[in-house]
Amino acid sequence: MAASAINETTVTVEQIVAATGGTLAGQIDKSISIRTIASLADAQATDISWVDSKKWLATAQESKAAIIIGARSVLGSDHPKALLVEDTQAAVANVLELFAPPADQPAVGVHPSAAVDETANVAATARIGAHVRIGPGAVVGEHAIVHAGVSIGAYTQVGAACELFGGVVIYERCTLGARVRIHANAVIGADGFGYIFRDGQHRKLKHIGTVVIEDDVEIGANTTIDRAKVGETRVGRGTKIDNLVMVAHNVQIGPACIIVGHVGLSGSVRLGAGCVLGGHVGVADGIYLADGTQVSAKSGIMNDFETPGTRIFGIPAQEHTAAKRELLQVRRLPKALKRISELEKKVAELEGAANDRETG
Amino acid sequence: MAASAINETTVTVEQIVAATGGTLAGQIDKSISIRTIASLADAQATDISWVDSKKWLATAQESKAAIIIGARSVLGSDHPKALLVEDTQAAVANVLELFAPPADQPAVGVHPSAAVDETANVAATARIGAHVRIGPGAVVGEHAIVHAGVSIGAYTQVGAACELFGGVVIYERCTLGARVRIHANAVIGADGFGYIFRDGQHRKLKHIGTVVIEDDVEIGANTTIDRAKVGETRVGRGTKIDNLVMVAHNVQIGPACIIVGHVGLSGSVRLGAGCVLGGHVGVADGIYLADGTQVSAKSGIMNDFETPGTRIFGIPAQEHTAAKRELLQVRRLPKALKRISELEKKVAELEGAANDRETG
Amino acid sequence: MAASAINETTVTVEQIVAATGGTLAGQIDKSISIRTIASLADAQATDISWVDSKKWLATAQESKAAIIIGARSVLGSDHPKALLVEDTQAAVANVLELFAPPADQPAVGVHPSAAVDETANVAATARIGAHVRIGPGAVVGEHAIVHAGVSIGAYTQVGAACELFGGVVIYERCTLGARVRIHANAVIGADGFGYIFRDGQHRKLKHIGTVVIEDDVEIGANTTIDRAKVGETRVGRGTKIDNLVMVAHNVQIGPACIIVGHVGLSGSVRLGAGCVLGGHVGVADGIYLADGTQVSAKSGIMNDFETPGTRIFGIPAQEHTAAKRELLQVRRLPKALKRISELEKKVAELEGAANDRETG
Repeated sequence: MAASAINETTVTVEQIVAATGGTLAGQIDKSISIRTIASLADAQATDISWVDSKKWLATAQESKAAIIIGARSVLGSDHPKALLVEDTQAAVANVLELFAPPADQPAVGVHPSAAVDETANVAATARIGAHVRIGPGAVVGEHAIVHAGVSIGAYTQVGAACELFGGVVIYERCTLGARVRIHANAVIGADGFGYIFRDGQHRKLKHIGTVVIEDDVEIGANTTIDRAKVGETRVGRGTKIDNLVMVAHNVQIGPACIIVGHVGLSGSVRLGAGCVLGGHVGVADGIYLADGTQVSAKSGIMNDFETPGTRIFGIPAQEHTAAKRELLQVRRLPKALKRISELEKKVAELEGAANDRETG
Repeated sequence: MAASAINETTVTVEQIVAATGGTLAGQIDKSISIRTIASLADAQATDISWVDSKKWLATAQESKAAIIIGARSVLGSDHPKALLVEDTQAAVANVLELFAPPADQPAVGVHPSAAVDETANVAATARIGAHVRIGPGAVVGEHAIVHAGVSIGAYTQVGAACELFGGVVIYERCTLGARVRIHANAVIGADGFGYIFRDGQHRKLKHIGTVVIEDDVEIGANTTIDRAKVGETRVGRGTKIDNLVMVAHNVQIGPACIIVGHVGLSGSVRLGAGCVLGGHVGVADGIYLADGTQVSAKSGIMNDFETPGTRIFGIPAQEHTAAKRELLQVRRLPKALKRISELEKKVAELEGAANDRETG
Repeated sequence: MAASAINETTVTVEQIVAATGGTLAGQIDKSISIRTIASLADAQATDISWVDSKKWLATAQESKAAIIIGARSVLGSDHPKALLVEDTQAAVANVLELFAPPADQPAVGVHPSAAVDETANVAATARIGAHVRIGPGAVVGEHAIVHAGVSIGAYTQVGAACELFGGVVIYERCTLGARVRIHANAVIGADGFGYIFRDGQHRKLKHIGTVVIEDDVEIGANTTIDRAKVGETRVGRGTKIDNLVMVAHNVQIGPACIIVGHVGLSGSVRLGAGCVLGGHVGVADGIYLADGTQVSAKSGIMNDFETPGTRIFGIPAQEHTAAKRELLQVRRLPKALKRISELEKKVAELEGAANDRETG
């Protein structure tokens, strides 16, 4: 089948050992080829797999994989299939790169169907796909990859080695650093959602600001990042944003954050460095979360959290321990209500007895 | 008006009776034409409507509709406008098909503006619209319909009679079965959201797996289904997914599920057959839901539910009866707190009396 | 830098005074140019800023801005930088318009790469961008702006002065009034999510209805508005919808509503005029919210609210005061449980004493 055929790269055991810096525990011929990397359950006799917890040792035992990557502390020293490494996840990351099939990307140069304004500045090493539109004064850096159907607005700057997947729309005057990856149909720089209510209608506020995406940011499919009213909306270096996330006007996201699917950040929210927001989290207007704040999925944040590294959850979100205790106590409500009923019965009896004594 | 003109197909009462297998209760000329099917409130004297519950009988009475589809148990046997059927909803489905206007679809063949790689294999009966991009080695099956601006990645396979609406992006090496419908601007096969944190930054894990969409699946507008890290993300036969849903890497969705708007399924989630997930539901990493699990809207699922057919809701989700009792008890909290105060008062009185006795 | 260069329009103090109808409190040369409008913190000595609350007076004091817009009640009468106005927000709106850079829009006429059906009716003053597709019988009004990669379905009508941003897909037979703005990659008119379960599978209901968007509506990026099963899905005049919102089939939204990001409206929901729905709000099938209903973020609405102007929140949503009281009482649970324990102790002592008396 053609689709799997392109997956079949030739990677030898020797290459894998070199890429991981690991040690084979058993007798394995280093010259043989490995077909791919697969999960323990799916791996065939020609494949490599991995195990990163003793919890999965039984599954590893049953796996057909030829080689299993893992730490000595998990696999022991003499597992016949073991490729022993210091850092299993990093080794897996290296092996994934070995087996990655060739990328599907446009040829170097500009596809004849692209509409590139004559005042745009596209690097000669960039790859511009079919039906791309690049506006006046826009800049596309060296080795950038712009997939089919992307639109780059006027005076927008796309840094070196950026990759914009199919259908991405970047409005005018936005700035992307180097190596920014934006997945398909994401939208950068649409107007912020700002109106004032006058004379019975919502009057639009012009959003004359912009969006700045720093180096090494990755943005998921169908995510939207709105432009600022004035100034800029900013996503910090190395931050990773999942699919279908909404980042409103004037939001400031620090470096190295992780923002999971369906998160909504309202206008002027500020996140410090290294914050982690779970799926469906919502943050109200202007809220500040300090460096390293960790927010559980589905939380709604209505107050600042100024202590770095705080774990929070709930609607409205509170510190993790308090929120958890609250949840547990709600679970104990049936019992509490029963205890109240029993108390009422006993107190009634005591009152009865007291009355008896008084009237007796 | 042109837009409504194309709605005006000619459908006779006779055709409707034949399509529904129903029986006219009154004296209605079978040769007359019906303009369209409309709700009871909107229907004009030239239209057909339906009623599927006695709750709407009064509205049916006031409706101008010429014919009303319904069951004998709802409409009775001698309603002059009744078209009596066994299965009202199925009859309505049949009538909707009778009145469906001609579809807006590209002509058979490849639009001259499309960019189709010479190594792609597009069936002669397929319809490829304007500004479509089809990558190297891709396959498009017989009678497939590919609307304007769609991008089909390298080595991706699109089965027979699939329909991909405007702006859909399918990355490389994905597989769609037969009759899959994907609505506009949905994205299939973007990278999963996977990183490891090393040396102060998030290192990307290459996602070398793929996405498999089985036969007869329908996927809503702006929904995203990410490719697997290794192996595949899979959507089972006949499952229906609404708009703006997020399906993460390596998720396995069983057949015949219903997944409503804004649902987020985290990495490696597994859903059995026939699960139903309400709007805004979130499911945490690796969770398993057995066949027929029903999840109420806005729930957050943090545990496996292994008993088939369980109804669940809440954040975190629990079995429906327990969750509902909990909600009710929270509603009763004001009363409980009052009962505690009263008990405290009474106990203080009893203690006072006891003290009086001891010191008296 | 080219990107910022285009921001540099020449606006004099005199123009600003005229546009705001305000009064300069100090001695400011009306002929000097102002570079842009910026926040108090970001403004340079060449900029104008604003203050709309005494809370920010200290920040205003430290701001480098040359001019600060504000009300006399906030800034006092003799602040040397003050531009005193009656309505600060309206004045800011006027000034934003003064500084708005030239728009990035296609030239008047049809871009040569666009695919416009010969039966479509495109006004001569309309601007049709690159790689646009316009279907048979479609109408595009005077001065409409259709950005790159948009698809307009057969017989769809786009009113005068509408603006459709990049990648928007409008299916067939929809109607947009005048001055409707739809942001990038939004989807109008996809099939509603309707199936009936028969013979072990979900049978699709054809959605033969349409979508009507009234005048002056704005719709955010990646939002989806589904077509009706029969009749129409309707968005009322002047309503503003944020990004990533889901509006299901047959929903009726009144005029002048505000609907924030990630809201999900299920089938046949009806909103009155001037409703405000916060982020992540979900509304169940067929629910009715009266005029001016205000829903807090993350609420889930499962009942009608028929009293105009009701504020609601929670899952399930209830009237604001009741919901808030409930939250507070849950927060008091730890204390309540402690009170129960103390009561149990005291009652046990009282019972012990009573037993002593009886057996003593």
